[in-house]
Amino acid sequence: GDARAADAAAARDGMLTKPPGSLGRLEEIVAWLARWQGRYPPVMDQPQTCVFAGNHGIAEAGISAYPQVVTEQMVLNFERGGAAINQLSAELGARMTVVPLELDRPVRNFLHAPAMTEAESLAAFNAGMRAVRPDGSVLCPGEMGIGNTTSASALCLALLGGPAVEWCGRGSGVSSDVLQRKAQIISEGVERHRESIGDGLDALRILGGREIAAMAGAILAARLLAIPVMLDGFICSVAALALHCSGPDSLAHCMVGHASMEPGHRRLLAHLGLRPLLDLDLRLGEGTGAVLGAILAKAALRCHLGMATFAEAGVDSGTAV
Amino acid sequence: GDARAADAAAARDGMLTKPPGSLGRLEEIVAWLARWQGRYPPVMDQPQTCVFAGNHGIAEAGISAYPQVVTEQMVLNFERGGAAINQLSAELGARMTVVPLELDRPVRNFLHAPAMTEAESLAAFNAGMRAVRPDGSVLCPGEMGIGNTTSASALCLALLGGPAVEWCGRGSGVSSDVLQRKAQIISEGVERHRESIGDGLDALRILGGREIAAMAGAILAARLLAIPVMLDGFICSVAALALHCSGPDSLAHCMVGHASMEPGHRRLLAHLGLRPLLDLDLRLGEGTGAVLGAILAKAALRCHLGMATFAEAGVDSGTAV
Repeated sequence: GDARAADAAAARDGMLTKPPGSLGRLEEIVAWLARWQGRYPPVMDQPQTCVFAGNHGIAEAGISAYPQVVTEQMVLNFERGGAAINQLSAELGARMTVVPLELDRPVRNFLHAPAMTEAESLAAFNAGMRAVRPDGSVLCPGEMGIGNTTSASALCLALLGGPAVEWCGRGSGVSSDVLQRKAQIISEGVERHRESIGDGLDALRILGGREIAAMAGAILAARLLAIPVMLDGFICSVAALALHCSGPDSLAHCMVGHASMEPGHRRLLAHLGLRPLLDLDLRLGEGTGAVLGAILAKAALRCHLGMATFAEAGVDSGTAV
Repeated sequence: GDARAADAAAARDGMLTKPPGSLGRLEEIVAWLARWQGRYPPVMDQPQTCVFAGNHGIAEAGISAYPQVVTEQMVLNFERGGAAINQLSAELGARMTVVPLELDRPVRNFLHAPAMTEAESLAAFNAGMRAVRPDGSVLCPGEMGIGNTTSASALCLALLGGPAVEWCGRGSGVSSDVLQRKAQIISEGVERHRESIGDGLDALRILGGREIAAMAGAILAARLLAIPVMLDGFICSVAALALHCSGPDSLAHCMVGHASMEPGHRRLLAHLGLRPLLDLDLRLGEGTGAVLGAILAKAALRCHLGMATFAEAGVDSGTAV
């Protein structure tokens, strides 16, 4: 991160016609953009949304309210502009990239085998890295994958421990019975593979999915390209967790757009030490919460760049009382 | 409120390509717009920001970090486009109305006399009513007035009781000593006038200020004009409280844009039973938190109107599991 760029943002913020610090997290966002774009002033003219899609063998365990074919149907919907993420990306002025990952070859059911081979996991990770446009102002990663909250919950259990049921939520909207079944499935899955899971990337390969590995790759690529990342909800934050296990500093360029209704998300954010910008009871994924966070970032930057200073406006600045 | 319009919004939300309810408060916002605009679909093409400014005799007690002249200087800054609210209003696409209210005649110091006569209070209330454009999609009321957090805290103490210190905050940024002094001032002020304060409008006249009375008038006028109101922070919510005391239903057309850092705001919202949309550590006023809330509302409506239905997109809808 570029501390000088962040300091330049803070310095101007202290001169603008408002009490120091009174724009709260909007000021934090601008300094974050400057620090991780490595320039002052930062820009928000080319945000990118990247939606990764993958299919999951674990879906055969009946843990989703939707059949697996919906992943592919939603990819078509993304391509035609009909999904929530299309509308929010348009509102932000973001370019949207859709990356379907071998949807006809779901990753294996982790109850029976590792979800991916090393080659498969690496291919998905690399697809995520390649999807990031080098001229982006901010990256909003998102996902679609029937069954992927179960996969994400298993990853949390494997990497962070704790009662399985506390990592499980209703995903796209399942009953309390299915919720119990999800907890049992992730316990069994983690138990089966415990010996093989050494680090975050192992867990990603064994319990994850292509879209989760791809998001991890995209988050890493953004860091290398000096692009700040606005994280989305539970699945996206689990991709970030896999990187975090390899090096806690690896998420320093990330903010979290929102806290999801999926209960594991708040637990996970507490572990990562990240405070979400929004809390709007969303549980859709696709990158929707990330894009809403980026919409705030755009407004924050406009404020920062467009406001007058005390000197320009002829306004008396305050004195300590 | 138009329940049929709100029902129409909910009905379409159930057909869009997402799990039911998964857009959380974005869905709530769209139904609220429909209900209080009294039409389906609702619109967000003409939002209005109204910034009211007034001066306070209580400022002579030294409870602000800024001299009183800053109110007028900031009005010029609003008129020239240099304040935070100008930038955020431009980001939203809102028309901004600035209403300075007899700045050369501050309301009286409530430690010595009622802040306003009945005629003065009524004139300010009416100025607020007149400022609302009848074709607005949503109204974002805001304020500027050196000393007005002290006035707002006194109103809360008079109308809701409780320890004075819990209604006081640092306003534009004062020391702990001044914070204690604010608590003592509002206790004395409320004690002095206790016999005269019968209802919310009495309290507004005796302890309030012209910009607070004007915001109350604007909130009421918006209701009569079928314009939903996005409330801002502490001062704005206190204006709403004065109406609420006369009839709890009088705020049914209001959402709250954000929770301010001013600690009394959260207490007040709990009393009003209103949940803020955002929590970004803002403490600026001017309507900034309201406009950020309206930016979310615009994004929510775009989603609602632009998304494809399951039938249009050929996506399987879910089944209960």
